[in-house]
Amino acid sequence: MTTVGFIGLGIMGGPMAAHLVGAGHEVIGFDVVPESLATLAEAGGKAAANVAEAVSSADVVITMLPDHPHVESVVLGDDGVLRNAKDGTLLIDMSTIRPESSLAIAQAAKAKGIRVLDAPVSGGEAGAKNAALSIMAGGDAADFAAAKPLFDVLGKTVVHVGPHGAGQVVKAANQLVVGGTYALVAEAIVLLEASGVDAKTGLDVLAGGLAASRILDLKRETMVARQFQPGFRIDLHHKDMGIAVAAARQADVSLPVTGLVAQLVAAARAMGHGSLDHSALLKVTEQLSSRG
Amino acid sequence: MTTVGFIGLGIMGGPMAAHLVGAGHEVIGFDVVPESLATLAEAGGKAAANVAEAVSSADVVITMLPDHPHVESVVLGDDGVLRNAKDGTLLIDMSTIRPESSLAIAQAAKAKGIRVLDAPVSGGEAGAKNAALSIMAGGDAADFAAAKPLFDVLGKTVVHVGPHGAGQVVKAANQLVVGGTYALVAEAIVLLEASGVDAKTGLDVLAGGLAASRILDLKRETMVARQFQPGFRIDLHHKDMGIAVAAARQADVSLPVTGLVAQLVAAARAMGHGSLDHSALLKVTEQLSSRG
Amino acid sequence: MTTVGFIGLGIMGGPMAAHLVGAGHEVIGFDVVPESLATLAEAGGKAAANVAEAVSSADVVITMLPDHPHVESVVLGDDGVLRNAKDGTLLIDMSTIRPESSLAIAQAAKAKGIRVLDAPVSGGEAGAKNAALSIMAGGDAADFAAAKPLFDVLGKTVVHVGPHGAGQVVKAANQLVVGGTYALVAEAIVLLEASGVDAKTGLDVLAGGLAASRILDLKRETMVARQFQPGFRIDLHHKDMGIAVAAARQADVSLPVTGLVAQLVAAARAMGHGSLDHSALLKVTEQLSSRG
Amino acid sequence: MTTVGFIGLGIMGGPMAAHLVGAGHEVIGFDVVPESLATLAEAGGKAAANVAEAVSSADVVITMLPDHPHVESVVLGDDGVLRNAKDGTLLIDMSTIRPESSLAIAQAAKAKGIRVLDAPVSGGEAGAKNAALSIMAGGDAADFAAAKPLFDVLGKTVVHVGPHGAGQVVKAANQLVVGGTYALVAEAIVLLEASGVDAKTGLDVLAGGLAASRILDLKRETMVARQFQPGFRIDLHHKDMGIAVAAARQADVSLPVTGLVAQLVAAARAMGHGSLDHSALLKVTEQLSSRG
Repeated sequence: MTTVGFIGLGIMGGPMAAHLVGAGHEVIGFDVVPESLATLAEAGGKAAANVAEAVSSADVVITMLPDHPHVESVVLGDDGVLRNAKDGTLLIDMSTIRPESSLAIAQAAKAKGIRVLDAPVSGGEAGAKNAALSIMAGGDAADFAAAKPLFDVLGKTVVHVGPHGAGQVVKAANQLVVGGTYALVAEAIVLLEASGVDAKTGLDVLAGGLAASRILDLKRETMVARQFQPGFRIDLHHKDMGIAVAAARQADVSLPVTGLVAQLVAAARAMGHGSLDHSALLKVTEQLSSRG
Repeated sequence: MTTVGFIGLGIMGGPMAAHLVGAGHEVIGFDVVPESLATLAEAGGKAAANVAEAVSSADVVITMLPDHPHVESVVLGDDGVLRNAKDGTLLIDMSTIRPESSLAIAQAAKAKGIRVLDAPVSGGEAGAKNAALSIMAGGDAADFAAAKPLFDVLGKTVVHVGPHGAGQVVKAANQLVVGGTYALVAEAIVLLEASGVDAKTGLDVLAGGLAASRILDLKRETMVARQFQPGFRIDLHHKDMGIAVAAARQADVSLPVTGLVAQLVAAARAMGHGSLDHSALLKVTEQLSSRG
Repeated sequence: MTTVGFIGLGIMGGPMAAHLVGAGHEVIGFDVVPESLATLAEAGGKAAANVAEAVSSADVVITMLPDHPHVESVVLGDDGVLRNAKDGTLLIDMSTIRPESSLAIAQAAKAKGIRVLDAPVSGGEAGAKNAALSIMAGGDAADFAAAKPLFDVLGKTVVHVGPHGAGQVVKAANQLVVGGTYALVAEAIVLLEASGVDAKTGLDVLAGGLAASRILDLKRETMVARQFQPGFRIDLHHKDMGIAVAAARQADVSLPVTGLVAQLVAAARAMGHGSLDHSALLKVTEQLSSRG
Repeated sequence: MTTVGFIGLGIMGGPMAAHLVGAGHEVIGFDVVPESLATLAEAGGKAAANVAEAVSSADVVITMLPDHPHVESVVLGDDGVLRNAKDGTLLIDMSTIRPESSLAIAQAAKAKGIRVLDAPVSGGEAGAKNAALSIMAGGDAADFAAAKPLFDVLGKTVVHVGPHGAGQVVKAANQLVVGGTYALVAEAIVLLEASGVDAKTGLDVLAGGLAASRILDLKRETMVARQFQPGFRIDLHHKDMGIAVAAARQADVSLPVTGLVAQLVAAARAMGHGSLDHSALLKVTEQLSSRG
């Protein structure tokens, strides 16, 4: 049994914490939303009054927060993890944030004797609920080995991808490919329909050849039918494309297609589709070619 | 048994014609390259001296040519198919050309009593040799039904995708998705490597989630290893991206990502990589981020 | 006095032909629109019944037509210029077409003993009416010298820019810079307005520094006021961006920004703004950021 | 006479501070580089030992620093401006930073009774030395009026463009137009040269028409000659394109051309040209079309 301090009990963190409780671990959670704390308590965890209380007795601290300002505040802040965790605690940040922020946190933690992994996930809400996340972890091999039993409770694919920040880089690479693939499928649909070709029939052909992709498999019918219930929201993919662009800047590389796709995802949000599934990028592409 | 006039006996057309001979059809072929004619004769076909001789007794004429000027010349020219084929002949153009060219040919043929299908293929040289092509056909359903037995000799996936030109539109959609996916995978590789993450490990994670694609499955190892033997050459994909952009113009739609990817594929060719596999688009992406 | 056969008496060609009449030249014109012929006759020119009649006695033939299929038909067709012009006639094509089409025409003409210049113009309808066009001519220096007196009747800036096709290349370069500049100014306006900054004030600052351009000088007030009366129509700029992309392909170069801007101009047309001034590219940019 | 605390005495700040001394103001400066302090002292200013000493007696504090982390540290930090400046001090940040950072600073300052203007400049090193900067200021009108006499010492064009952050937004808009114009001129040059047209002659024509710009006026000869001594360095323009992309995100707008141009400028830096003039963006464009 491990004592886990869990900060961030939202759509993702809530079910993840519950799975850890279910696996027999002691989970002391904190979230600014009282309902989230109540839900954890019902599941058998303990509700802490603040970050300090959640982490002070923990062997492992997991953070699952919206973006880097939240993580930096919770970890580095005056009442945060680094000031309150025991020496030798393992901090696992499972949030999706910029690689440079993960590196900064790792550096600050090291100075305080805290070990750190960045371990963002993919698989979304369904993956969190079904303990079927993909987890891509960056940091020291020994720390990954220590975290592995917990990761196995939460996910199906668990990979140590490299040093500090590597988890975030792989997640960024994943999201730029996913966002770009939606843009390409959207352009294929717009071209097919405007040319008088049945899009469903056309995409079936694409899905049978070199153009095949998980996205074509899972989403071509709903995209053609314009069904955009999330799934993974445009707002979140917009955040992630920002991380991909920031990661490119940090790595001193040029990613022209990513730079363009990031703006198209930004358009989806700006046009008011932030709460729709990320496949709703199609709405941007078709807007560019429609008179209405 | 069908009498087939087959124009264009190159890398693709040669093995296709041989398969038709092998299936028991009478194939009368023509090509401007004498060796191609000799190869057909060895396989049991007949070598014609010109287009007229190849098509004048045919029930079905198949054209498999590099681009629309060749097809237009062979079909519409003074000594071409329309002037020499019998009334009621079925012309199947299996070349990859602009949809508007296919439409113009269909219109001209109709005036001469010739039926037409546009039926471009994917699967490349290997697909032609192994009779494993994907065939996407546009035109009348009755003509598709008539051609189906021949298509089944040549390919594994054979789909009637819509009216005249629809085959070319689906092929264009396929190629824009394929070209764009290579660009995205290339950007992922460049980001991973520049960030100090092992690209193979990173792409393995991508291939296990929503970013998965046939291209990641088939090409991620060779791309990371910079092995770019074709396969399908950049020069041909450059031609196909031109068709995709032309098809968009014809359909009066805007495809921003396709417009950009077309220029990146053009860069691969301009940089001298035209004879490499299309996955060599990676060489453009990495050039943009390397000090030479 | 020169005898000029003038094919294409539309919005541009009509006033140009009239200026040549006014300068004392004999102008024999042809157009498919009868009203255009009547207008020429009123101005003192002669109306021909067809291309042959317009060019058979001419020293110089000028063509001013919408796009390359029209020019190719008029020049290369069975009843066209090359079959009917005198040996040694100078053919000046002032249409804006693809460089490769200009080269093909020059080659075909040479075989018939006809000299050719490609000489597209900028300055639009107002430039044609006020004899203030910019004329960029490609071809032999001697032919340019021979044409110079006529060019001086029509334009203010007259430059011999290089060999056959060079005029079209310079025109293409001009249009890609103009189209791209509109896109940039549009993005500046959208950013300023969405950030709560008065766009007029902001653009005034830009127009005073390194961002200054003729387009900012002439169009920033109308763009901010959303006044888009043409001027030069989106439809024509869409055609010209297609030429720029084709010229890049012909020259074997990669122009990524041009490739993207061409799709944005295509969007302006697809969204129904083809008859508005090209500064209406702003409508595409703001659509990408507005909730409808 | 005003007492000015001046933080950041580098290439830009050094000559600016000297101009203020020359105009009769008392300037107490601070910089982490001792030589910069010595230079200020020689010019008649006072060298402070730290930020606190520079600002504690000042009526006006000017900051001229590389990027937002430096400004945030100097202004918001434990030993920073807000903790040490007198109540009612006017803080003028002339650095080029993200609008959202300027807004955060204005908010924090207000809580401490400090008034703030964001007032980035354009005109570069030459503009700073010659007191010929363009200054675009955001903040309250009364504060702008108070700062105007100092601005007039430093610049020629001084404009109050709107509320807090507006100065940064206008600067971002300026830089995206400048960066994009370089990309367009570069694409024009590559197209002209590859087509066998003399680029100088071609650009002369462009500079005489609607494609005209300050950049074509000032830089077309040096770009064609591949002379890229700065001027304004790629590294700085890369930083500024990052600000433009961040400003778009903050304003919830989509800027596709800016998103692409930002990646091309990133390529110029990644390819090792960070110390060249920003017109060296041409080196990226031509790399995309050259064999070696």
